[in-house]
Amino acid sequence: GFSSSVRKVTLIPGDGIGPEISAAVQKIFEAASVPIEWEPVDVTPVRQADGKFGIPQAAIDSVNRNKIGLKGPLMTPVGKGHRSLNLALRKEFNLYANVRPCRSLPGYKTLYDDVNVVTIRENTEGEYSGIEHEIVDGVVQSIKLITEEASRRVAEFAFQYAKDNKRSKVTVVHKANIMRMSDGLFLRCCREMAEKYPEVKFEERYLDTVCLNMVQDPGKYDVLVMPNLYGDILSDMCAGLVGGLGLTPSGNIGLNGALFESVHGTAPDIAGKDLANPTALLLSAVMMLKHMELNDQADRIQDACFEVIKEGKYLTGDLGGKAKCSEFTQEICSKIK
Amino acid sequence: GFSSSVRKVTLIPGDGIGPEISAAVQKIFEAASVPIEWEPVDVTPVRQADGKFGIPQAAIDSVNRNKIGLKGPLMTPVGKGHRSLNLALRKEFNLYANVRPCRSLPGYKTLYDDVNVVTIRENTEGEYSGIEHEIVDGVVQSIKLITEEASRRVAEFAFQYAKDNKRSKVTVVHKANIMRMSDGLFLRCCREMAEKYPEVKFEERYLDTVCLNMVQDPGKYDVLVMPNLYGDILSDMCAGLVGGLGLTPSGNIGLNGALFESVHGTAPDIAGKDLANPTALLLSAVMMLKHMELNDQADRIQDACFEVIKEGKYLTGDLGGKAKCSEFTQEICSKIK
Ligand SMILES: CC(C)[C@H](C(=O)O)[C@@H](O)C(=O)O
Ligand SMILES: CC(C)[C@H](C(=O)O)[C@@H](O)C(=O)O
Repeated sequence: GFSSSVRKVTLIPGDGIGPEISAAVQKIFEAASVPIEWEPVDVTPVRQADGKFGIPQAAIDSVNRNKIGLKGPLMTPVGKGHRSLNLALRKEFNLYANVRPCRSLPGYKTLYDDVNVVTIRENTEGEYSGIEHEIVDGVVQSIKLITEEASRRVAEFAFQYAKDNKRSKVTVVHKANIMRMSDGLFLRCCREMAEKYPEVKFEERYLDTVCLNMVQDPGKYDVLVMPNLYGDILSDMCAGLVGGLGLTPSGNIGLNGALFESVHGTAPDIAGKDLANPTALLLSAVMMLKHMELNDQADRIQDACFEVIKEGKYLTGDLGGKAKCSEFTQEICSKIK
Repeated sequence: GFSSSVRKVTLIPGDGIGPEISAAVQKIFEAASVPIEWEPVDVTPVRQADGKFGIPQAAIDSVNRNKIGLKGPLMTPVGKGHRSLNLALRKEFNLYANVRPCRSLPGYKTLYDDVNVVTIRENTEGEYSGIEHEIVDGVVQSIKLITEEASRRVAEFAFQYAKDNKRSKVTVVHKANIMRMSDGLFLRCCREMAEKYPEVKFEERYLDTVCLNMVQDPGKYDVLVMPNLYGDILSDMCAGLVGGLGLTPSGNIGLNGALFESVHGTAPDIAGKDLANPTALLLSAVMMLKHMELNDQADRIQDACFEVIKEGKYLTGDLGGKAKCSEFTQEICSKIK
């Protein structure tokens, strides 16, 4: 039916298992009557005027129009000099904060059962600046770039996220004992932001200490905010604690839009066989719904997904079950209240 | 008694619990009749001619003479501009490889029971170059420096270590997908070295992937070699898997000497109370003995230490026991064969 409040969402199904898990999410969204309209786009790199490969203009236009998108896994183009498409998208839309909640899933056993952390990663600079030189033969420098603007922006995002989501603490993760100026600047921006959010607890920890404590007692942490590379590491490590990238969602928040994505690979070995697990993409879509303030739909879908995992009767192969992607999906649809 | 083969070893007892755990190691070495003579030195920073603080010359001379040392935890000097003494020592003696074996200890239960990895960390450059600038207000760059010389040196060390210690595989840990030139150079040096050691398996993995896999299945890894910062993180994380820094040894290998150390803190709260756990320093001393090819003594001490931990009757407080440092130490002495 027609509704004036139907919003368009860009859908990048992606490669490998991407199309299957995207279809699964679409089906579940239908079952929950989510009032959005998908706008599928293709992001296969095209050769541009300057000879380089880039994201097709139609895809860029779609995200710029809709300001919100969901994305499956993308193959990294092969060949020298090709930067990852994921990075290109972060850059194109200035997606400055990567948000990755990691929670132990009831019913899915790992070594840990009390993980409930959110890593918030600065997503535009740091070691990812892309500035590198060979000074003389055999001597290379890479520049880690930290700016006050980007640091303050992501610090503010982290505290506001903690406040909005009723989280009690933000931990800034740094190595300012080593990189006194760059991580020092990041740390200072977080300290300053902490003063504006007196209702949120604030602590400062070294990256190595967090890595050690996280594997011993993840319950110590709540929201973590950090420079780009540290976020790359910690978010994957935390995903590992709760079962891996097949179960954890991710959102990239920008000034003019937001892109939610599953961060696992394209799994070419099982692509097209109806064997993939759509959970990471589905939970990313749930994050997206919350971002759109469609909280009711978000909660209903998430509850149904968690229930199916908890019951354990229709799990995909990666979770130790025998169900097909379509069976798992159908079961979630049937459990939506 | 006198023996012409008695070698001198520099001993830096350190701060806080340092003197107690150093005394424990000395006692255990006596019980095992280790043919070395300790040369204790003080490394409390002294003001130098240029007004800066530095390591006392007598300490530097001792290490340069003996070429080998054992070191307890050091307090980081307070005050702006003071670099960590640990870093100063690495620099002074060009200790280019940091070696940290992490093994699950029989009898000491953690979430993991099959950890047996060795992280080998490039210890002189990378993000630890100390080169930082504020380009314009609010824009800071830190330089990550990777050289062919240092990369090849640590790569060679890793493969030789694997070979000498009958380890089957070396994994290079990198982010050359992002830092194509700097990590790319490190990676290339490892690839080239791998060809010279056909008997050792070689694999390449992204840092984030290793962090994820390590918490899920540490048995996947054996010897890991990587740039400085990644080693800082991974070595602490691996220590976390087996019980923390109180149980894991560390060795810093240089061109002209080697320094073995416990990497835990000075624990000022329990210092002087005979409550500290000397295991990390003792196992570092065992590594030192192996480095000196005193393998018999090394094995006898290690066996005794593991046996006491396994029996669980004389554990210090950090391990959940009630024993004093001196009781734990005495028990190890009495078990030395
Ligand atoms: C694919 C890769 C470039 C990327 C990164 O390093 O950021 C990935 O690991 C991630 O976390 O999104
Ligand atoms: C104390 C600190 C400077 C040091 C480091 O960052 O290297 C420590 O974490 C280590 O691993 O030895």
